[in-house]
Amino acid sequence: MNKDALLVLSGGMDSVTMLYDFSDSIDLAVTFNYGSNHNMREMECARYHCRNLGIELVEIDLSFIGQYFHSSLLSGADAVPVGEYDFDNMKSTVVPFRNGIMLAAAAGLAESRGLKAVMIANHAGDHAIYPDCRETFVKAMGSAIAAGTYDSIELRAPYTLLSKIQIAEKGKELGVDYGHTYSCYKGGEHHCGCCGTCIERRQALAEAGIADPTIYEDDAVTI
Amino acid sequence: MNKDALLVLSGGMDSVTMLYDFSDSIDLAVTFNYGSNHNMREMECARYHCRNLGIELVEIDLSFIGQYFHSSLLSGADAVPVGEYDFDNMKSTVVPFRNGIMLAAAAGLAESRGLKAVMIANHAGDHAIYPDCRETFVKAMGSAIAAGTYDSIELRAPYTLLSKIQIAEKGKELGVDYGHTYSCYKGGEHHCGCCGTCIERRQALAEAGIADPTIYEDDAVTI
Repeated sequence: MNKDALLVLSGGMDSVTMLYDFSDSIDLAVTFNYGSNHNMREMECARYHCRNLGIELVEIDLSFIGQYFHSSLLSGADAVPVGEYDFDNMKSTVVPFRNGIMLAAAAGLAESRGLKAVMIANHAGDHAIYPDCRETFVKAMGSAIAAGTYDSIELRAPYTLLSKIQIAEKGKELGVDYGHTYSCYKGGEHHCGCCGTCIERRQALAEAGIADPTIYEDDAVTI
Repeated sequence: MNKDALLVLSGGMDSVTMLYDFSDSIDLAVTFNYGSNHNMREMECARYHCRNLGIELVEIDLSFIGQYFHSSLLSGADAVPVGEYDFDNMKSTVVPFRNGIMLAAAAGLAESRGLKAVMIANHAGDHAIYPDCRETFVKAMGSAIAAGTYDSIELRAPYTLLSKIQIAEKGKELGVDYGHTYSCYKGGEHHCGCCGTCIERRQALAEAGIADPTIYEDDAVTI
């Protein structure tokens, strides 16, 4: 298959699974440092998997987001709410239009490199809370990228309608090592185990029948 | 009028005119440093007019564009083609998806500040060469911004169908001091007078009947 795509790679479970799932078509990955609590740990995971697959990784600094935007995800671990994802407690973790900014930067980079497509691993579980993960956004952003580039660059989001469990099931088939992915919004050395994204990670790995390699802080507490 | 908008302000003729034209609704302006030859000189003009009108200006660093993207606009003055705008000689000045990136960052900043709209001063003269200035792009990007933000932020581009001459005519009525705007793609202390954007600037000011306050290098040569 022709390697014609650039993947937006955070280093979390979803985008790492996509990197393996579509490694035949991914020529380049890009990861963004936007000043979140967990950015540096995610980026280490992104580097690990790109090295593993021999795919080039570009690291882009978007520190203006941490400097000027408001979100609990940018405000230190104590600001992150504890408990399952739901609208009221997780809305504070929204980084305004983050996917729009990352996709726009990725589109420009793809055009600079002569690539034909940008890929992103948004999925169905994100939609309720994050407007810039929804199918309507992804479709409109795809139209904007196609209209605003010479080569009508295509936006591919093949996980848009999948659940995180279905993504983990794909990862299981592909043999993805989830020990080298990072999810926790608090950004500690170990996953906290109790923020919305940790709870979702645990459930997805459990329901996909994967032995969870993650060290969770709240397990340590209860031992 | 309610001040509900954020303006993408380069410091060139078009966005400076829009700043004065819509100063009643502009609460905040944002300017971007993306490493182009003329960026610093444009930004000085952006600061001047914001100070003059008492409008806050946020300066955002997008230096990854200069670092990773390809364009003669990012490659020093000697790389900029000389002569009127036309497809063949000006395509090299395209910074891939630049307006997409600036609008996405502006949308996130607007949502962080509780504003309702983002404004951009793309105009009809840009369209032939720059895909991310065209009406189809602006409409699609507007849909993406509305879909990807909680408050359905609106993209306003009221100069999309105007020529640069019509913008200069507005500026004349508004008393805009074009001596404090910068256009030249070469980025020198004085405008070169012979690159595509200098030629367009001269023509627009002349046809709008404005005494051109600009010092052009090629005038100096012919004296």
